[in-house]
Amino acid sequence: MTADITTGLELRSLIKSSGELEISLQQVTIPAPGPDEIVVRVEASPINPSDLGLLLGAADPATAKVTGSGASAVVTARVAEANLKAMGGRLDESMAVGNEGAGTVVKAGSSEAAQALLGKTVAMIGGAMYAQYRVIKAKEVLLLPDGTTAEAGASCFVNPLTSLGMTETMRREGHKALVHTAAASNLGQMLNKICQKDGIDLVNIVRSEAQEKILRDIGAKYVVNTTAPGFFEDLVAALEATGATIAFDATGGGKLQGQILHAMEAAAVKAMKVYSRYGSTTHKQVYVYGRLEPRPIELSPPGMAWGMGGWLLFPFLQKIGKDDAAKLRARVVAELKTTFASHYTKTISLQDVLNLDNLRAYAKRATGEKYLINPNLPG
Amino acid sequence: MTADITTGLELRSLIKSSGELEISLQQVTIPAPGPDEIVVRVEASPINPSDLGLLLGAADPATAKVTGSGASAVVTARVAEANLKAMGGRLDESMAVGNEGAGTVVKAGSSEAAQALLGKTVAMIGGAMYAQYRVIKAKEVLLLPDGTTAEAGASCFVNPLTSLGMTETMRREGHKALVHTAAASNLGQMLNKICQKDGIDLVNIVRSEAQEKILRDIGAKYVVNTTAPGFFEDLVAALEATGATIAFDATGGGKLQGQILHAMEAAAVKAMKVYSRYGSTTHKQVYVYGRLEPRPIELSPPGMAWGMGGWLLFPFLQKIGKDDAAKLRARVVAELKTTFASHYTKTISLQDVLNLDNLRAYAKRATGEKYLINPNLPG
Repeated sequence: MTADITTGLELRSLIKSSGELEISLQQVTIPAPGPDEIVVRVEASPINPSDLGLLLGAADPATAKVTGSGASAVVTARVAEANLKAMGGRLDESMAVGNEGAGTVVKAGSSEAAQALLGKTVAMIGGAMYAQYRVIKAKEVLLLPDGTTAEAGASCFVNPLTSLGMTETMRREGHKALVHTAAASNLGQMLNKICQKDGIDLVNIVRSEAQEKILRDIGAKYVVNTTAPGFFEDLVAALEATGATIAFDATGGGKLQGQILHAMEAAAVKAMKVYSRYGSTTHKQVYVYGRLEPRPIELSPPGMAWGMGGWLLFPFLQKIGKDDAAKLRARVVAELKTTFASHYTKTISLQDVLNLDNLRAYAKRATGEKYLINPNLPG
Repeated sequence: MTADITTGLELRSLIKSSGELEISLQQVTIPAPGPDEIVVRVEASPINPSDLGLLLGAADPATAKVTGSGASAVVTARVAEANLKAMGGRLDESMAVGNEGAGTVVKAGSSEAAQALLGKTVAMIGGAMYAQYRVIKAKEVLLLPDGTTAEAGASCFVNPLTSLGMTETMRREGHKALVHTAAASNLGQMLNKICQKDGIDLVNIVRSEAQEKILRDIGAKYVVNTTAPGFFEDLVAALEATGATIAFDATGGGKLQGQILHAMEAAAVKAMKVYSRYGSTTHKQVYVYGRLEPRPIELSPPGMAWGMGGWLLFPFLQKIGKDDAAKLRARVVAELKTTFASHYTKTISLQDVLNLDNLRAYAKRATGEKYLINPNLPG
């Protein structure tokens, strides 16, 4: 029966030069797999913050409207003129969405590697996962252990490899502890589990007491709250206690990045014996990997031994090379039900993605809430 | 006669916890040199921007007063309460000043290396050069070729090694051209000479037509003016023409750093064939090595492949190692009269440093103006 698969639904996001976002489902052709390729029936694909950037662009969810219904529904929303420029490269081009997912291999090319996967559950990364079927090279997928469901394997890549990438980067760049912002997120909770397991000190920065509690409840030792009156002093104290000199920041705006660097410098200067007008020689680093805060970053240079920069999973994996990247992936599979377990608020169909109540809920990126799409769930 | 040298004048800068800056000359003891040491009669030491930070601290030159005269003169000035915190490490400690200088070796320890330098002209770096005599290890000085004056050798280190450090950093980090801000400075002009000699494309950023002219007159090809109406477009065009993806910034504040990164990104995106919501994969880097602009740095992340950080000469020299650092110093000596020639507006005595007209002039850090101290000039 599966040999008959020739078309399937795929979610598309289009931003027109007129400033209109259009999200729709397209019936697309599923080509026969090449010798080294397989066709995966996608059964679980998460909506990560990094997916929302492509799905919604800079559109305002409050302006969203829907026309039609079922697989023919079309969501439209407005992109403000000021934000349209940043969308330049994708205007008038229909984009497939969905970074990662998991499912069952339903067709396989003639190669041995492809044939070996037939009927197996595999995890994938590479875009266009919000679709009923995904054609992909056999060597690119991650074979999940027997008995693992697609749901359990849907988030094997983005959050697990990003959080492992943070502790790896910390080690490779010679730091001994780290700081994380927006720390109560799914990713942040995972990072806490990794650090607890590996004996790494982690300073969690959150912005509410509720988030503080989430992290304390999973055993976090250092949690500082930006809205508490003694925030800066609390942060310096945690940095002195841990010796953390590298931070990963999900917000990408405002004064927090500078506060972290200055708190690191204050902790380093306290340990100095001789004055230098250049400050400490301890290198202090902040990597920005997200953009939750649209304001510009504002910082005064914290001495001279500091760095700030963008951090992104794929360039990191390229930099460490195939063998080391494979080791990280193997650890994810080995600890899929413990360290790297993901929890979802709701599982929805492709059609449900176009439902306005759902859209406004997942667009909020609320802490601890996460949607899973099953593209083969009946609409 | 020189065997009698046991004391000498040394300039000192003191910031009291009360917020008062005090600059004075102290009669200090010149210890007999150890076996590996020499005593240098300092005959030329420049006032670099990096010296002013230690000499004046955060004091306001407009509040400066002088009491006493000659070698007994004392300059006082106020440090605003708000700036006193940043001076924390040096409060109530009398600091010697002067990063680099040159002079004649008048006493030498018993070792062969020390004895070999007796009577020679040497260049030095290491602080406390605003003094009649400086005791230093023989192996730390740079022997100047016969016939080189102390004045010609006074600025062998800070500007020459900093500008060479920029092109070296550019090469080592895989960039092919570079950007420099406050580009009409002494350092900036030196960087133009290096780049012209070495065939490196350099984008000079200045903020006036007069500075544009200074650079055009010495053969600079790419000069963009922040005050010109088409500044950003001019910058993008120069970056496209040169392929520069690394910048060295002397200002350390405001929006310029972000503008440079965004212009680099705009130039990189123009060359991209496929849209990515993360922007280009070209790494764009700004190093901040000065602080002419007291405002905070303000930037929106320019895609994900970017970095910003502090850059300082000594950590750079340590990083490249002794052998490579020695090669850079050898080049400076070889090209001391051409590429690395420094020009001074005025030569003054130690006593003249305490003269208020001089102080207000050198404190201005005016483009193209540079003071040289000869601590052995009669007051």
